[in-house]
This record gives sequence, structure tokens and C-alpha cells, in this order.
Amino acid sequence: MGAVHEALAALSLVDHHCHGVVTADLDRPGFESLLTEGDRWPGGSPFDTPVGVAVRRHCAPLLGLDRHAPPREYLARRTELGWREVNRRFLAAAGTGTYCVDTGFGPAELAADDVYEVVRLESVEEAMAAGGVEPDAYARAFHSAARQAVGRPGVVAVKSVAAYRTGFDLDPARPSAAEVERAARHRLAAGGRLEDPVLVRNLLWTAVDLGLPLQLHTGFGDNDIRLHRVDPTHLTDWLHLTAGTIPVLLLHCWPYQRQAGYLAAVFEQVYLDVGLTLHHVGPARARAVLEEALEITPFRKLLYSSDAYGLSEFYALGALSFRKGLGELLQDRVDDDELSLSDALRLAEWAGAHNAHQVYRLSGSS
Amino acid sequence: MGAVHEALAALSLVDHHCHGVVTADLDRPGFESLLTEGDRWPGGSPFDTPVGVAVRRHCAPLLGLDRHAPPREYLARRTELGWREVNRRFLAAAGTGTYCVDTGFGPAELAADDVYEVVRLESVEEAMAAGGVEPDAYARAFHSAARQAVGRPGVVAVKSVAAYRTGFDLDPARPSAAEVERAARHRLAAGGRLEDPVLVRNLLWTAVDLGLPLQLHTGFGDNDIRLHRVDPTHLTDWLHLTAGTIPVLLLHCWPYQRQAGYLAAVFEQVYLDVGLTLHHVGPARARAVLEEALEITPFRKLLYSSDAYGLSEFYALGALSFRKGLGELLQDRVDDDELSLSDALRLAEWAGAHNAHQVYRLSGSS
Amino acid sequence: MGAVHEALAALSLVDHHCHGVVTADLDRPGFESLLTEGDRWPGGSPFDTPVGVAVRRHCAPLLGLDRHAPPREYLARRTELGWREVNRRFLAAAGTGTYCVDTGFGPAELAADDVYEVVRLESVEEAMAAGGVEPDAYARAFHSAARQAVGRPGVVAVKSVAAYRTGFDLDPARPSAAEVERAARHRLAAGGRLEDPVLVRNLLWTAVDLGLPLQLHTGFGDNDIRLHRVDPTHLTDWLHLTAGTIPVLLLHCWPYQRQAGYLAAVFEQVYLDVGLTLHHVGPARARAVLEEALEITPFRKLLYSSDAYGLSEFYALGALSFRKGLGELLQDRVDDDELSLSDALRLAEWAGAHNAHQVYRLSGSS
Repeated sequence: MGAVHEALAALSLVDHHCHGVVTADLDRPGFESLLTEGDRWPGGSPFDTPVGVAVRRHCAPLLGLDRHAPPREYLARRTELGWREVNRRFLAAAGTGTYCVDTGFGPAELAADDVYEVVRLESVEEAMAAGGVEPDAYARAFHSAARQAVGRPGVVAVKSVAAYRTGFDLDPARPSAAEVERAARHRLAAGGRLEDPVLVRNLLWTAVDLGLPLQLHTGFGDNDIRLHRVDPTHLTDWLHLTAGTIPVLLLHCWPYQRQAGYLAAVFEQVYLDVGLTLHHVGPARARAVLEEALEITPFRKLLYSSDAYGLSEFYALGALSFRKGLGELLQDRVDDDELSLSDALRLAEWAGAHNAHQVYRLSGSS
Repeated sequence: MGAVHEALAALSLVDHHCHGVVTADLDRPGFESLLTEGDRWPGGSPFDTPVGVAVRRHCAPLLGLDRHAPPREYLARRTELGWREVNRRFLAAAGTGTYCVDTGFGPAELAADDVYEVVRLESVEEAMAAGGVEPDAYARAFHSAARQAVGRPGVVAVKSVAAYRTGFDLDPARPSAAEVERAARHRLAAGGRLEDPVLVRNLLWTAVDLGLPLQLHTGFGDNDIRLHRVDPTHLTDWLHLTAGTIPVLLLHCWPYQRQAGYLAAVFEQVYLDVGLTLHHVGPARARAVLEEALEITPFRKLLYSSDAYGLSEFYALGALSFRKGLGELLQDRVDDDELSLSDALRLAEWAGAHNAHQVYRLSGSS
Repeated sequence: MGAVHEALAALSLVDHHCHGVVTADLDRPGFESLLTEGDRWPGGSPFDTPVGVAVRRHCAPLLGLDRHAPPREYLARRTELGWREVNRRFLAAAGTGTYCVDTGFGPAELAADDVYEVVRLESVEEAMAAGGVEPDAYARAFHSAARQAVGRPGVVAVKSVAAYRTGFDLDPARPSAAEVERAARHRLAAGGRLEDPVLVRNLLWTAVDLGLPLQLHTGFGDNDIRLHRVDPTHLTDWLHLTAGTIPVLLLHCWPYQRQAGYLAAVFEQVYLDVGLTLHHVGPARARAVLEEALEITPFRKLLYSSDAYGLSEFYALGALSFRKGLGELLQDRVDDDELSLSDALRLAEWAGAHNAHQVYRLSGSS
């Protein structure tokens, strides 16, 4: 094992974007539904996918099974050990010291030094809307609820899932008070999710007012996404208008990792990760995705996230894919003398931990 | 040769989408015009392309020539042998046991166990329109003609070239009877090809009514395509509306193979291949394209097709590129212990034959 | 070193698109601002990028420093040598015999046999507009100014930066005289840059009238670009309308190199390069980008350019990335017997020099 792999193996990662883990035993349908971003399909199993293969290869040994254990055996062993022990093992294997979590993640489950919170602005808006507010008070009430949410201890960033609601081919300008009020009238009468384009724009501009780093889901996700509308380059005009205000962190990005890298290269405030993708493509392709993500991305702009959700396997698998993929990429460049070892080690530490410490101003910053 | 290559070499492929082969001798201009999807260009020859190099490398030896034989020698030998012998050799070399053919493919030319038919719906519509029909009877007449066409023995699927006519950035909803009649009035008066967006939508919804699997050309083709409009993710809303009805098979896909893989991962009914691309990029790049196509695609969702048309070389070259590209990809993962050998063999058999057997319910299903 | 690498090392390149080099000593901020296409960012240095690493690796030794010399040391040595010696060394290292330059590039700085000029049409238009013209004379005056500009000795092509001004999702038709006059009225009253879509279309059609090859910036550039609007496939309808007139050379293309390759494969008049990208991704990724660019591109359609601007490092780094990337790609295919050595040598010479000689009809054509 080369020096880069050793350094990455020893590095306490900052997972700057993840979700909660299931704290219950799972039956096969429950496990399989969390294994995929997709629908179920007849005659197939979510285990017959790149992520399914990766779980059997890399997670089975952590449960004391052979590599490539069959699904039935894997799930039986998972049940036998119980969710507490399973989660403990996978979270320990992740080697992640710091988590920034977008929803409730039981701290008891974490073998982490630090847990921070990321406030999902759509949830704030929807709770406020459900609680009752007049259209002419909408903007102020949302701002105030968001301000209150980010004032909680441990909050380091906000997040938007605008990608799921409208995509990014929006008018980049801040909507006027009259536009917001008019849109709020319909939205509050209709209830449900925030999907109005004017109010999604209002949400993005509210994020600017809050002053915290903004995480934006881009690219890959479930089938609520219209993938071509979440190419992050649709954000270009908005990034021009908001330059000099808040850091913007592009999450996931696949298959637009090159486009995200372009934005990170030409806009001071833009950062990116390839979370979610890392465990879905698995260690077999994590390097290829990272190679593209790093083609022009400045080294201070790449962050690590797992975007793990539900299965504790994903925390381990995301970290493993990142360490293996980035390690191979960097070690080969060092071996080819395209990169010095000290530069490679610096880049690895930046991407795995330090860039997140800096952009979120985490305490105990490395 | 590893176990995966051996298994793929022995596998009788199902080519789930191809066209007819020329049953005549070809002069140089005739051969060259079939070798390219493009215009001719001055001072260049279609042999000076990746596919031209691949033909000289891999097809020349099947005609008894040296590898990399020059074009003149290659064509002379082709003429010397005659089209019957040339086609016999290449079709035998393909190792394809089952073909699903979109237009007339002389069965005598096939060294295949089974030949099935795919009905191109635009051809049905254009024949019906040319035959004379009143606008208010258009929808019913098209449905009826299509129903009759798919009732012929051996028909297993329908196909649409909507990609060539309008692209996929269409209103996804089924058009109303009044809209169809109004559009039909213009279309029937104008004659010619089906290009009206409302009638293209009507065609796609007619495919849903027919209940058979629908093959959709996406991505790469000739210059009738507006490539950015045939990114298959433009179909997302239509896929939501038609969920639970018919299987949808995305053909070609390049350079949107990752986007196609996303759709296959999140929609139960979506399948994909990288046909046409395989012989145009040649064995030198088939693996790279397959790697991207398989990044997140479930293993039950990838199919093999050659999309061969005209030259019997393409049936051999498509099959060779597929076997070599997929074989290397899988064998390397087995060698790296990222994939078990039994999983690799299963994936190869599924992609090369079984997935097609299942989605088209072919007789003699493996 | 294999035969392909040797041939490429010995080949006198034609750099068919580049800019002027700075003829002055640069302080650190001056150097760093030329090293990046992006904004500056706090806590980071443009040296912490793929191009920064490539400069320290490949350019430092040309200044007599160790590989991977630190930025401070690199810049000190650059100052010590002075800009004349620095430029002399890097331009000599480039091994470029012929330059086609889009703005003034002091011939004294060039170790080149030939320097040709490319006329940027937006500059012609803006000089004419600033000089004063009546709206009804706009079209004629622009045509006449452009005609005069291309009549200068050594002019071999025109260039447009329409990508920066409007993107390519434009009405492809030639605008009417009345439309041009109406748009000119506003544009001339407002002054400044040419950004009106009607007048950008008029510019592209004026290029057709001039009859010279047209270079089009596509893909990657600074943050004036809306990347998704400069995918060159948006030009498809315009390429249909202008078929049979002028050669069109797609510059840069990344991350749309496959899309550009598609256009080059299906339109007689389309050519492409991956300039600018080559030095920004560096030798570590140049091959990967070239592999994609060459997936289906005919071998007579790929050209070399550095798109170097400002820093003489880029002339050397672009040439090095091209030679190394293309050399590895071709040599590996020769080693795998996918390509004959003579074909590989031919392809290398075509891409590095001969294709440009032919499309621009350069004197002393190889």
C-alpha cells in the first residue's frame, strides 16, 4: 500500500452531507427499498446492481461473512447481529470523525467526534406553511423561521432540494415582494410541497440572506428529478448575481461532475462533491468519477460526502469508495511523477477533511 | 483467456435491435456510404475513422486477409468472395443466435436460430397516411393499422424514431382527440414524413395501447438528429405517466449512456443498450462506453444490440465489441475481487441474451 | 519510447488557434490571474489546481528548477530569467512550427516558421460600431469591415465568440435586412459589446459570406459562458443551412468533446480540437479527453490547438499534453494490435499538422 493510501486510511473524514440511519431491524423488502434510488422491478432484485455487488463485496466481511456473500445470507447475518451492532460496525469502518447531517441522526449511533446539522430549507418552509400564515406575511415568516432554525446550536449550513421541485432553469433574479405574495397565495391555498418556481427562487435568495453555506442537490437522485434540468450550469446567472455572498456546495453532481468542476473553477464561491454517486457506482467506478470531477476543479473546492441515507452500509461504502478511488488516482500520479507526494497528501487531506472544516468553519478545525 | 471471455465467446447472443443487410455486391462509394453515419467529405475517406480502422483490423482476417489490410485490398477481396459468402462469414462470426429486426432482413442470410420482427410505427403511420384517411378517422385508423402490423407472427416489439422527427422535449401528455384530428388535418394535407409533435405524441401513446415493448432511438444517429434534444432524460415525465404499462428500451444512448443508466435505475420499465455505438467506436473504446453505461444500471436492464444496418461487417463487429468490452470490464473486476466470478458470468449471460429473452418473452427463452 | 511518441516528438505542430503571449515580467498576482479561467478565491491559490500542478511539474525543469518546484521558487526563477528568456524557452519547448493567432502575437517572440492571423469578428464589429455607422448601413458596413480585415496578408480564418455572447441556442436562419436594421438601432444606441442575438446571427452568416474557415469557441471558458448553452450540437440546424459553404472548426469543446465528435462525424464541414482543455487538465488527463474526442471523430477532422493566452507556459504545456496524450492513446492501440503503426503515424501527423494545413490552405503545406 502506497503512502497516499496510508494517509487516506488514517485520515478522519468529514462527511459534509449525509442523512439519518435506520435504527431498526430491516426485512428484505425494507432493506432492498433503501438499497436503490429506483422503483422495484419484476424479476429483479436491487442486489443485482453495482451498489448491491459492492455491499456484498465490501460490507459482508465487516459482518464476518465471506466476500460476495449471497443476499439471503447477508440479510440473515444482519438480522442475527441486530441493527445496533450492524450500525456500530459500519460507522466505525467509515472512519468518519465529523458528520454534517441534514435530518435527525441519532448521535448515539455515531462513532464520531462531531456532529453538525444542516437545515433543509424546504422543510422549514413546509412546516411554516402548514402552521398557517397570511400570503402578505409569507416572506417575512419564512425568513424568520429559517433564521430561527439556523440559530440552533450546531447548525453549520442550509440545504435546498430545489433540484427536485423545479430544477435550475429558473429566472435567477430575486422575486419581488408582490410576486412572492401572489405566489404564496396559491401555494398556501393548495398546501403540500413547495413547488412554485417563484417561491423556490425566494427560498434560494433567503439562503443568501441567512449568510450560511448553501448545499444544493444537483444531478443524480430518485425519479422525482428531471436530470437535464439539474445540470448545475443552469445556476450560472444566479451564481453571478450572488457572487461575494455565500459559499455554494454542489452535491452529488453525477453525471455532471465536469460541469460542476467548471463552476468550481470559475466561481470563487462554488464547491462540489460526488456523494451518493460514490456508493452507487461502488469502488469499481469511484475513481473514474473522481477523475472527471477533478479534471479542472481547484483542490480547495472538492469535498467528501457520503450522502448516506438509511443503511449504515452506505457510510462505510461511501468512505471506502472515496479513499480507494482518490487514493488510486493520486498514487498513480505520484508514481508517474505527475504529482509530488507532498502535493498528493495535501490534496487528500484537503478533500477528505480540511476543505469542509474551512468552508463550514467547524470547531476543532484541522 | 479468462473465464468471463470464454463464457461470452460461447454465448449465443440475442441482438435485440438490428436492420437488414445488403444482399448485393457493393462498389467503393456504396460501401463507404454505409460505413458512416455522416456526409462524405472532400479529401477524406470513411475508412479514416474509428469504425474504418476496426473493419480493417477485425473483419479483414475473416475474409482471409492480413489484419489492417488497406481499403482497396479489402474491397477487392469482398468483391472476389461475393456478397453471399461475405455475409455468411460475418454473420457466422457474430455468434448471434437470435435477431430482432426492424425491417426486412432476408432469413436466408441469417445463421440464426430465431428471427423476430420489430414494427417501426412511423412506417405504419406513413403507409396509412399515404393510403388515404380522413382526419377524424386518423387516430382510429393508425391504431388499427398498428394493431394489425403487430399481429403478424414473430412480432415482439414496436419501435419509434421520434428522436429523428421531434426529439423528446415534448409535452408528455396524451393528446386529446380534437388535437390529434386538427394535427392530422395538416399532416394529411401536407403528406410526407410524420413530423408533427402532436402526432408523434399520439404515436408514443399508441405504442402504450399496443402493450408491446417499445424501442426508442436515443442519442447517436445521422445528422437528422438534434443530439441535445434526444437526451433520454427528456422522457422523464412521459415515463412517469406511462409507468406500469409497457417496457421501454432505450437504443444507442451514446453520449447519454449515463443518463440512460439513471433512467434504468429509477424507472421499473426502462432498459438500455449501447448498440450502433459499439461498432462505431470499435473494440478500442467499447469497454469505456460500457463502463459508463453500467455505472448504476441494474444488471437486468442492459441488453445487447448491434443496430447493424447494411454491412454484414457490423453484425460481427458489434458482437465482437460487446464481447471484448464487456469481457474485459467483468474479468478485471473479477481479478480485482470486486465481483465474484459467478456474478460476472450471470451478468454476461443476462446482458448478452437472457434480459432480451425476458423482456420480449421470446420462445425458447433461456 | 515507442515509435508513435518519437514521431510526435519530431513533428512540427500547427497550433491552429492561440492568442498573444505577455511580453513583460509578471508579479505573483499577475501570473496567478493568467493561470486560471476563474475568479480568485480566498485561502486558495490558482497553483492548487490541475494546471498549477502541471506547470510546476513540466515547466519548472525548463527553467532549470526541480520538478514540482514550489510556486514561490518558480516565480522567483521566472523573474530572475526575465520574460524574454522565459518565453524563448517555452516557445522552443512547444515545438510548434506554425501558429494561427487570434490577436497580436509579437513575431519576435516566436520560434516558429510561420505565423498566420485569425480575425475575431466581434472585434471587427465592435470597432465598426464604435466608429459610428447608421443602422440602415450596419450590415453593409460590417460586411465591408470584415472583408477588409480578412484581406490583410496572412489571414487564414475568422473566429466568433458567439458562445460568450448568446450561446448557440439561436434561430439558425439568416436574419432579414429589416431585423438587422432594427437590432442595429438598439445596439448602436447602447454601445458596448455585441450581444444582440439577431446581430450575433448576422455575424455568423457574415462569416459564411466571407468564405474563410470559421473558428467557433464552444464549451469551456471563463464564467461569461453559460456552459449548457454552448454545447455545439445546438448548432445543428445552422450547420444544415450552411452545409457546402465554409469549414467550421469547433474549439475547446470540453466537456462536450463527444458531442463535437458527433458533429464532425456527420457534417462534412465540421472539425474540432480540444485546445485550452489540454493544458487546464494537464498531461494527467489529456489522454482521457482525447480518447473521448476521438471516439467517432474522423481522423481528418481532429486538429491541434493550444488556445494558449498570456503565459508562455501554456504553449509548451498544450503541446506536451497533446503529444503525450495522443501518443499514449495511439501507442497503446498499436501495442494491442487495434491499429497498425503506419495508421497511427498517419493519424498523429494529420492531427498535429496536416489537417490544419489542409483546412486553412497554409503555404508550405505538408
